[in-house]
Amino acid sequence: MISTSLWLPFVDLAGTFVFAVSGATLGVRRELDLFGVLVLSFAAATAGGIVRDVLSGAVPPAALAEWRYLVVATLAGVVVFFWAEHVERLRNPVQIFDAAGLGLYAVSGTSKALAYGMTPTTAVLLGSLSGIGGGIVRDMLVAEVPAVLRSELYASAAIVGGIIVAAAVALSLPRGPAMFVGALVCFALRFMAIRYGWRLPVARLQAGDD
Amino acid sequence: MISTSLWLPFVDLAGTFVFAVSGATLGVRRELDLFGVLVLSFAAATAGGIVRDVLSGAVPPAALAEWRYLVVATLAGVVVFFWAEHVERLRNPVQIFDAAGLGLYAVSGTSKALAYGMTPTTAVLLGSLSGIGGGIVRDMLVAEVPAVLRSELYASAAIVGGIIVAAAVALSLPRGPAMFVGALVCFALRFMAIRYGWRLPVARLQAGDD
Amino acid sequence: MISTSLWLPFVDLAGTFVFAVSGATLGVRRELDLFGVLVLSFAAATAGGIVRDVLSGAVPPAALAEWRYLVVATLAGVVVFFWAEHVERLRNPVQIFDAAGLGLYAVSGTSKALAYGMTPTTAVLLGSLSGIGGGIVRDMLVAEVPAVLRSELYASAAIVGGIIVAAAVALSLPRGPAMFVGALVCFALRFMAIRYGWRLPVARLQAGDD
Repeated sequence: MISTSLWLPFVDLAGTFVFAVSGATLGVRRELDLFGVLVLSFAAATAGGIVRDVLSGAVPPAALAEWRYLVVATLAGVVVFFWAEHVERLRNPVQIFDAAGLGLYAVSGTSKALAYGMTPTTAVLLGSLSGIGGGIVRDMLVAEVPAVLRSELYASAAIVGGIIVAAAVALSLPRGPAMFVGALVCFALRFMAIRYGWRLPVARLQAGDD
Repeated sequence: MISTSLWLPFVDLAGTFVFAVSGATLGVRRELDLFGVLVLSFAAATAGGIVRDVLSGAVPPAALAEWRYLVVATLAGVVVFFWAEHVERLRNPVQIFDAAGLGLYAVSGTSKALAYGMTPTTAVLLGSLSGIGGGIVRDMLVAEVPAVLRSELYASAAIVGGIIVAAAVALSLPRGPAMFVGALVCFALRFMAIRYGWRLPVARLQAGDD
Repeated sequence: MISTSLWLPFVDLAGTFVFAVSGATLGVRRELDLFGVLVLSFAAATAGGIVRDVLSGAVPPAALAEWRYLVVATLAGVVVFFWAEHVERLRNPVQIFDAAGLGLYAVSGTSKALAYGMTPTTAVLLGSLSGIGGGIVRDMLVAEVPAVLRSELYASAAIVGGIIVAAAVALSLPRGPAMFVGALVCFALRFMAIRYGWRLPVARLQAGDD
């Protein structure tokens, strides 16, 4: 990870910011107070990574041990809280950033899990969870079914990104480029899914079933 | 656990399968997409054990470290997704299997917690949590009050099964037969509860209260 | 913590009891069965501390390892269950005790996290989480948006209490008195918030926005 060690912290914090924006936006819409909005910012930005770290035995989780995640998430929450009406207009840009965050979290989460000695399958699971966990906790906190369980192709993109990293490492290919490619493919898949409304199928129940 | 080491993996995977079926069935009813259904399968099958492992310090949790749980849960999810209308007719068999899974998870969870040096009380708590945790997370993911908190005798059966194992170990009785008896008693209690509609009491509030 | 070691266990159990009462009361209102009410008692009383312990690497969590928390939470749950109509009349006393519990959990959680070598920022986060986590899990279990995210000044009071402890320790002031002052300030803030309806602001969306 030497070649990635220079830019990874920046993309990490950029991902934190965009995920925090998604949390804060939901909090404002649900009319939470300032603290509630900040909690949703922080939860959306860090819950995926926290769960990954706890499941890997990496405690205290980086998101709690390093103050910059708290600062970035709080900053995002405050910005959204006080400029809420403008954030609505930025929905498309936010979705693009969110897609970028998803790719970054998925590959860095997979990479981190591999570094902790997880098997490739486990690492991909934990990496994808890093990407989607924040959104799941964010939605559960406002008593909604997580969007990731029913929206356009989202988690699948994260899984593909993670698999690319795990496969490259298993084949002894260099990790840095693999992470770049994995994040890019994940981003591209998610971008196309938003653009063209790609969805996974939904099971059909017979008429009359509940 | 030598005498149980031969059949325990099979019952473990059987329990994984039936719990995954319960998660996938709920996901199909809530019109989640394929990925959402698979997440509910995996969560229902493994969340109880994952929480138990995290609380015991056994990380990474077995359900993530060993790929067979993922394979079995995914298989169950795919089967339910594509044959959803037939699964409805199997409600009674699924409930029976679920009761068996509950008994198996409760006793193996208690046994595992004891092996990690927990006190008997803690071990019974963690064992019961292994049995009911998956269902709780499953229901929370679709924003419902967990069925286990309001349905027929369910968790109580798991607790009784766990107590039998913990008591036997405390009395230095052989663990294998105790696990068998504990799982059987838990299964029988749950079966009778379904059959005869046994329920725990609900508190009465005065008329006019909310 | 020598000077506090005498009274801390008592306040800890008192906090456990009042938080358990808040959980049991909610469970009765939502018409959960006896087991559901006991789960809500235990979750409200211990989830904050359990999450703090897991995130600090202190497993098994004290709330599971020591049977007295289970006993106290169960006792509170049984009392509420069988005297539910009287508990309603005690809403004001319960809120006062809950405020006391919040202060106690916030300062003891912060102190415990510092003892595990966390940085001050992390310790305050974990301490506040000890105070509010039980209420969050309690509300999520009945599929409601956590009250702490939208009610009067609550988490803010816990954060102030935690900051007082962390600041005192950073300045090498004695921990015992700092914990006393922190708990008192947190309690006073919360009490005033209830008394005078102090709230944090809510963001205003433009008319026509959802």
